[in-house]
Amino acid sequence: MNEIFTARGSVLIAGVTIDGSTVDIALDETGTIAAIGKDARKTIDADIVIDGSDRIAVPGLVNTHTHAAMSLLRGYADDMILQDWLSQKIWPLEAHLTGDDVYAGTRLACLEMIKSGTVAFNDMYFFMDRAAAAVDEMGMRATFAYGFIDLGMEEKREAEIKATETLIAHIKSLNNPRIQAAVGPHSVYTVSPEALSWCGDFAKEQNIGIHVHLSETEKEVVDCVAQFGKRPAVLLDEYGCLTPRTVAAHCCWLDEAECRLLGERGVTASHNPASNMKLAVNRAMPYHWLKQYGANIALGTDGCSSNNNLDLMEEMKFAALLQKFAWNSPTLLPANEALTMATAAGARALGTGPGTLTVGAPADIVLLDTRAVCNTPLFHADSNAVYACNGSAVMTVLCQGRILMHEREVPGEEEIVREAGDAALSLADRAEESS
Amino acid sequence: MNEIFTARGSVLIAGVTIDGSTVDIALDETGTIAAIGKDARKTIDADIVIDGSDRIAVPGLVNTHTHAAMSLLRGYADDMILQDWLSQKIWPLEAHLTGDDVYAGTRLACLEMIKSGTVAFNDMYFFMDRAAAAVDEMGMRATFAYGFIDLGMEEKREAEIKATETLIAHIKSLNNPRIQAAVGPHSVYTVSPEALSWCGDFAKEQNIGIHVHLSETEKEVVDCVAQFGKRPAVLLDEYGCLTPRTVAAHCCWLDEAECRLLGERGVTASHNPASNMKLAVNRAMPYHWLKQYGANIALGTDGCSSNNNLDLMEEMKFAALLQKFAWNSPTLLPANEALTMATAAGARALGTGPGTLTVGAPADIVLLDTRAVCNTPLFHADSNAVYACNGSAVMTVLCQGRILMHEREVPGEEEIVREAGDAALSLADRAEESS
Repeated sequence: MNEIFTARGSVLIAGVTIDGSTVDIALDETGTIAAIGKDARKTIDADIVIDGSDRIAVPGLVNTHTHAAMSLLRGYADDMILQDWLSQKIWPLEAHLTGDDVYAGTRLACLEMIKSGTVAFNDMYFFMDRAAAAVDEMGMRATFAYGFIDLGMEEKREAEIKATETLIAHIKSLNNPRIQAAVGPHSVYTVSPEALSWCGDFAKEQNIGIHVHLSETEKEVVDCVAQFGKRPAVLLDEYGCLTPRTVAAHCCWLDEAECRLLGERGVTASHNPASNMKLAVNRAMPYHWLKQYGANIALGTDGCSSNNNLDLMEEMKFAALLQKFAWNSPTLLPANEALTMATAAGARALGTGPGTLTVGAPADIVLLDTRAVCNTPLFHADSNAVYACNGSAVMTVLCQGRILMHEREVPGEEEIVREAGDAALSLADRAEESS
Repeated sequence: MNEIFTARGSVLIAGVTIDGSTVDIALDETGTIAAIGKDARKTIDADIVIDGSDRIAVPGLVNTHTHAAMSLLRGYADDMILQDWLSQKIWPLEAHLTGDDVYAGTRLACLEMIKSGTVAFNDMYFFMDRAAAAVDEMGMRATFAYGFIDLGMEEKREAEIKATETLIAHIKSLNNPRIQAAVGPHSVYTVSPEALSWCGDFAKEQNIGIHVHLSETEKEVVDCVAQFGKRPAVLLDEYGCLTPRTVAAHCCWLDEAECRLLGERGVTASHNPASNMKLAVNRAMPYHWLKQYGANIALGTDGCSSNNNLDLMEEMKFAALLQKFAWNSPTLLPANEALTMATAAGARALGTGPGTLTVGAPADIVLLDTRAVCNTPLFHADSNAVYACNGSAVMTVLCQGRILMHEREVPGEEEIVREAGDAALSLADRAEESS
């Protein structure tokens, strides 16, 4: 293995481009940005030097909504009506999922995210202790929520409460600053008011975040109003589930008042454009209202079975283009705002720092190739990053100063791909045998 | 240079995956597929052998609507209202465009297309003799149309007729089977009925195709009905511009009767989803009607200033997702149909063969990496190609049996990128100096 992956200590990124200027970035031994500037190299005696020429530095990307291990289900079933897809394909497969599968799938997901510039993600799924083990090894940051679904059944609710408590205790016991826990009430249509109330209280008591699906489909809103006489965001708020540490995924069908409510509560809305388009949810997240009312607007890929990749560079383009198309405005969500969604807004959502390249910030840094065709010509780096490039323009990725990828090499890539491929085929075989 | 790029003769692609089976593909000296099967290697004494293990073979992609040299304008201006963008940014720059710029820009575009699996494209721009020279060198196929715009002025019309005649005579004189000409009436809002009539007649006389923008915006339709009392496709048909060799780009605002008309005339509709979303045209091409009435539905990226790349692998995903979202159907435009749009339909549009991997077809072949993360797991190759992968999964590209890229190496890449970058900066400098 290239020794750059195993060396530890201070790091100098020498002569890299930021906002059109050539500077050095000096990182101290704790993985914090210690200095940025023309002569930052003079401030440290670096243990590791990365050549920044022909590279643009941007903050590490943050994926605020995914189900990482679903990378094992990539391409298993597509182009179906949601209910058929879930009941005939996804759920029967998931019924056979093991902790080993989640470990293999999360490692594959981490590899994919690292290779496309993502350093942190917000995950909701099962066997999350195994997912956390994968993230620990891969060197990324993640926040894990157990997907809490009680369907109004008291016995199931007790089991879900227990599973949530167990996961959060486990994550806290890891004592790994890169790995956090959140409470994960799945949605207002799968979680009872009693359980939502417990989730809100428990998140507050534990001082952790909440990860929830919100207003993905019109049916969710219509059913919620019919059952509870109020819209989903209002219901979540009533049970204490809208906080500055809540990430609400999708948010397609929010009305203006709900957007104002999310803004007032400081909630993060995670925009998932590719998934929303693929599943034909028939409305795009109202970015303009959420922006107007000061909500934190971030970006997510959703799981690999409804996207079908985890490339946030691509997702920025889908976000910027879907907003323009769906709300009929070519000036909506310009490139620089898309990049902010994928970086600073994501970091704020997960509490991983400012998500900017500034002194004192965690060294979560991505280096893009200026010689790539997608960066030629290089009139505006933000535009190229959002509209022209995809994850393949990412050359080097650092998380808390640790080098996770360099010159597109990630340690162990072949093994991770092979093991995940084998796990997926074995999972599908087991599901078919029992059907 | 790797000798695989200069060697000539028969080619064997050994042990490659097609539709889940491992086969050989044998290409004869003329660049035609001579045999496909488990023992095809026994049919030839190959001069060149390509290892097909860990590779999926798909037909070469065809980009049916672009302005290739606009790669020089990538990221120059974005996120603006169409009219401001054109009048304040694009046209002032284009006024300074030289033949050398078009040569440099088209070489960059060819490089980008080859690196993302495209072997042929349908181009409309200026200085097309220089674009043709670039394509000749790069080894791709292209059809060139001079963008004919008379704005109803007789003098300008005469000049455009002359420019069209000159280009077509030049292209024919090249006598290069990879390079074709088409007549390029820009659109019904920039070309007078007299000129449309001339274009229809001239295309018929010369036995060549027509390349036209059709119903990109609602304004085009409203203005056309107000001025001529009929919708754009009907107007084009009246002047003989809808033929089996016509490629109509965009087609967003076609009504059902116009879709039927395109089907009856055997026209190709080129879907340009990323451009349509970015420019907020407010309606997606009615794929369902065009399919119902038997039009040939192909795919295009449009120019780099409104996309901002030429990656047809990415464009397949935009097409499949935009159709689902805009027409509210998760089953619309499934993965296999998106791949057909980008291959067989494109080849039919440009008359470059069947666009399939079949004996007797031109050897326009793309090899995708099965070990790429986006192909892991590999349940359905079409799904992965459309929804998970982008152009970076393309490893090897052949056009008429000639190897244009192998293991992601394209001869001359560094020089092409450097020269195009320099040309773009110089162009912008000239435009700014004179403003």
